[in-house]
Amino acid sequence: MGRRRKFWGWGYEDEDLSREEKENLAALLAGRFGGAELTVTEPPALAEVRLRAPRVQPPASLRRLFTDDAYERAGHTYGKSYRDVVRAYRRDFSPAPDWVALPGTEEDVASVLAWAGEQEAVVIPYGGGSSVVGGIEAPPGEERPVVSLDLRQLNQVLEVDRTSRAARIQGGALGPDLEAQLKPHGLTLRHFPQSFELSTLGGWIATRSGGHFATLYTHIDDFVESLRVVTPAGVVETRRLPGDGSGPRADRLFLGSEGTLGVITEAWMRLQDRPIHRANLSAEFERLEDAVAACRAISQAGLYPSNCRLLDPNEALYNGAGDGTRTLLLVAFESADHALDAWIGRAAECCRDHGGAVPQEVGTRAGAEGAREGSAGAWRNAFIRMPYYRDAIAGMGVLNETFETACTWDRFEEFNSGVSAAVHSAMDTVGAGRGWLSLRFTHVYPDGPAPYYSVTGPATRGEEIEQWQVIKEAASNAILELGGTITHHHAVGRDHAPWYRREQAPLYLDSLRAMKKTLDPAGILNPGVLFS
Amino acid sequence: MGRRRKFWGWGYEDEDLSREEKENLAALLAGRFGGAELTVTEPPALAEVRLRAPRVQPPASLRRLFTDDAYERAGHTYGKSYRDVVRAYRRDFSPAPDWVALPGTEEDVASVLAWAGEQEAVVIPYGGGSSVVGGIEAPPGEERPVVSLDLRQLNQVLEVDRTSRAARIQGGALGPDLEAQLKPHGLTLRHFPQSFELSTLGGWIATRSGGHFATLYTHIDDFVESLRVVTPAGVVETRRLPGDGSGPRADRLFLGSEGTLGVITEAWMRLQDRPIHRANLSAEFERLEDAVAACRAISQAGLYPSNCRLLDPNEALYNGAGDGTRTLLLVAFESADHALDAWIGRAAECCRDHGGAVPQEVGTRAGAEGAREGSAGAWRNAFIRMPYYRDAIAGMGVLNETFETACTWDRFEEFNSGVSAAVHSAMDTVGAGRGWLSLRFTHVYPDGPAPYYSVTGPATRGEEIEQWQVIKEAASNAILELGGTITHHHAVGRDHAPWYRREQAPLYLDSLRAMKKTLDPAGILNPGVLFS
Repeated sequence: MGRRRKFWGWGYEDEDLSREEKENLAALLAGRFGGAELTVTEPPALAEVRLRAPRVQPPASLRRLFTDDAYERAGHTYGKSYRDVVRAYRRDFSPAPDWVALPGTEEDVASVLAWAGEQEAVVIPYGGGSSVVGGIEAPPGEERPVVSLDLRQLNQVLEVDRTSRAARIQGGALGPDLEAQLKPHGLTLRHFPQSFELSTLGGWIATRSGGHFATLYTHIDDFVESLRVVTPAGVVETRRLPGDGSGPRADRLFLGSEGTLGVITEAWMRLQDRPIHRANLSAEFERLEDAVAACRAISQAGLYPSNCRLLDPNEALYNGAGDGTRTLLLVAFESADHALDAWIGRAAECCRDHGGAVPQEVGTRAGAEGAREGSAGAWRNAFIRMPYYRDAIAGMGVLNETFETACTWDRFEEFNSGVSAAVHSAMDTVGAGRGWLSLRFTHVYPDGPAPYYSVTGPATRGEEIEQWQVIKEAASNAILELGGTITHHHAVGRDHAPWYRREQAPLYLDSLRAMKKTLDPAGILNPGVLFS
Repeated sequence: MGRRRKFWGWGYEDEDLSREEKENLAALLAGRFGGAELTVTEPPALAEVRLRAPRVQPPASLRRLFTDDAYERAGHTYGKSYRDVVRAYRRDFSPAPDWVALPGTEEDVASVLAWAGEQEAVVIPYGGGSSVVGGIEAPPGEERPVVSLDLRQLNQVLEVDRTSRAARIQGGALGPDLEAQLKPHGLTLRHFPQSFELSTLGGWIATRSGGHFATLYTHIDDFVESLRVVTPAGVVETRRLPGDGSGPRADRLFLGSEGTLGVITEAWMRLQDRPIHRANLSAEFERLEDAVAACRAISQAGLYPSNCRLLDPNEALYNGAGDGTRTLLLVAFESADHALDAWIGRAAECCRDHGGAVPQEVGTRAGAEGAREGSAGAWRNAFIRMPYYRDAIAGMGVLNETFETACTWDRFEEFNSGVSAAVHSAMDTVGAGRGWLSLRFTHVYPDGPAPYYSVTGPATRGEEIEQWQVIKEAASNAILELGGTITHHHAVGRDHAPWYRREQAPLYLDSLRAMKKTLDPAGILNPGVLFS
């Protein structure tokens, strides 16, 4: 609290890289690119941001819910993707919303929607603003007034059920907010996406966020016990149930609805006891395919590790967790209930069965959560700091894109070669061939992995967005053609919408549109994302 | 193959109880009811069944797909609930479909739907006919012609992906059919509802069937990798993916759609390796609440047993698994990968921590599937034979109803007392007070159990359906009022529809109706169930 968020990119102002750190990073990357010229750009200052006058005025009775403060409007213009940050460095905040609404209650949310419906103003539900897929910005060329509906004041844990291990939590609660409120009860949601610090429960649900658990409970979906959603046509609330079989479950309609069908104001969430037993291993493989086979064996063994993360040699190197010659597999178990020797022991066997070396201690330790050591620890620290680095390198002329997907095991090898070839070819096309592509698995299932790719290369100043677009299209086309999904957990937003529409049956999209018409008759909610 | 199914109730003719077995059962039950008079009724013969002439004629080009054979029409009139069997004993087959369609291909399915749409004929998709909620019968007073669309010829495993452990299976495959086709590949779906022998994959998906696994993978939902659905407006097919985050998942719309939105012709299903390690225990508790606490501890421990079944004293007694004084908890683990000593050991500790006696050997044994012994084995054999007994007792004037639900742990005690009180009171009202109510948990979750209740009592001849209705209403009202769901895995059908509509937000029902209008514009698919 009191810390000020960057209005133009990820995180807090006081945690951003210093000028010196940026200069050092630029020199390091320039060397890795074989001598490209990288120069550090100053981030935009608020005084440099030009915003047009709001195109509509809220009525006096609701005026208290709205702000047109420049810092707020600028801060609600974009998500946090590479393209977003490049536009911010260019001082281009032209899609800024006319107003930012800050409801304090669910009734306020309904009032904003009702007024926006009358005005035919677009409403974009806003959680932590961490979208990397264009999920929270005004549609290009939108002529209607635009309101960014920021839920940050709805950030309370309202009720805790210790017996069932569940809590009723407001949609605008950031990760650290809700964990702090759950901790006195000995409970935790344990949903730790990379955006954890600055993303919200409602945002996680609306985007089917992928979290902490690499297996079994991979998406926030599995932790939703019930929802409360305010739509322009009224409230939809579901019943708290541990499971049910009564028709297509309503929660599942709003999971992944990305602000198009309603505003998630509350959810009863399933929680965990705080783990006290931990066990982990780090295995090294000479060949990627052996690490993949070990990963598949573990995911099909019924062991359900909380972490099962494969890092290819590039990924390991650039996250400080390897020397760039081996593929790593990081496996971890955690439990609030029992020692994990049998679990980690069998996982180690799966690694060795496939030629993996397990040099680090395979052990169970009990105790409070502490600093992690070794490769896993190094990787984890890099993971949390990564978005600050991404902002920094975008400002020094380094092209960066991450994309993620999922596919079945049988096609992974062909899939991976095809995607790699398409992306490398696109990198060559845009002159970023001296960069690199790296791969990790963020989540794994018995029937397939969720591969996550990162592209880093030298950009041509002034052409970053066009270059990014070429790579994005090549990657997305390859993913679709080779049998993956356009997103495993980054959501669809506007950036993925063209491929999403190719991935889905047209008739299904039509039926979603019919449903939307019932819930949002005026079509004001987040137009342009998904099917709308 | 070659065995003939009973047209009027559950199962095969040659497995039904003999006259002598029925007489013995009647004498036993009469004693338990304190001397009620129970007389065995002969089941209906086909010659006794009167069917009206079909109200419509299929065109010559499609005639080969239809039959009006009396055995088929009678056999497709009802599901297998108590009410259904009572009506059959009364020789009342008045809701019989005009035709039974037997498509051999997906194109045939589309042709039947197209023709029915033109004729404004109702189409009721039919899998194994095992509905116990009125899910597959013509709506009362339906004036349109009715076609029962039986998928039984679409019963093939079309493709097996050993690497990802998945198979493409046609919707009409019965449980034993698909398991037999998967066995040569060393794979199994391991979905074993009580109806396993005579229910189909498509039916399981359409009704969100609950299966073998008592924890973790409780519903068929979790095993659906992708679907292919023929709707009156066209085909919806989803992409094979181990997981995804691209919008509300289309599969989830058809899961639980109960034939109202389309006909599930194929699914890629996630499979298991055949287990070779097994461990189980049977714990006895003097107090129900201690067994509940142990069950909760196990379900929250992250152990994920394949079985975790609580039987109250009545349930244990009437299934031959106890003496009627103790509550039993049956816990079992299975694995194709690893020995289970650590798992079963910790589960036994959870039982003992809550005062449970674990008299039977707690052991891990490896080997092929064989006969189970002890309480668990006795219970299991009774489970499989149970539907034959239910048909028999319905014919001797014994009232029988089972209903199931789910609720969170925090409210279970109040829930269970409230439901029991309401049902006992209803039993008294209809003169069945000398019967009994028993409880088991069929599935358990970290945040709550799925309680399953059975009512057995003496009926008044000629008033069975009215008596059943009184009990059904009392139970359903109590469930809804006390925070449960109208169904955990039996589905909604027509019997549960009034409570389903109370359980769901009206706006959600409206949006489902809008969706249906897109997929089934003429409203011909299974009217009267769910929201339609």
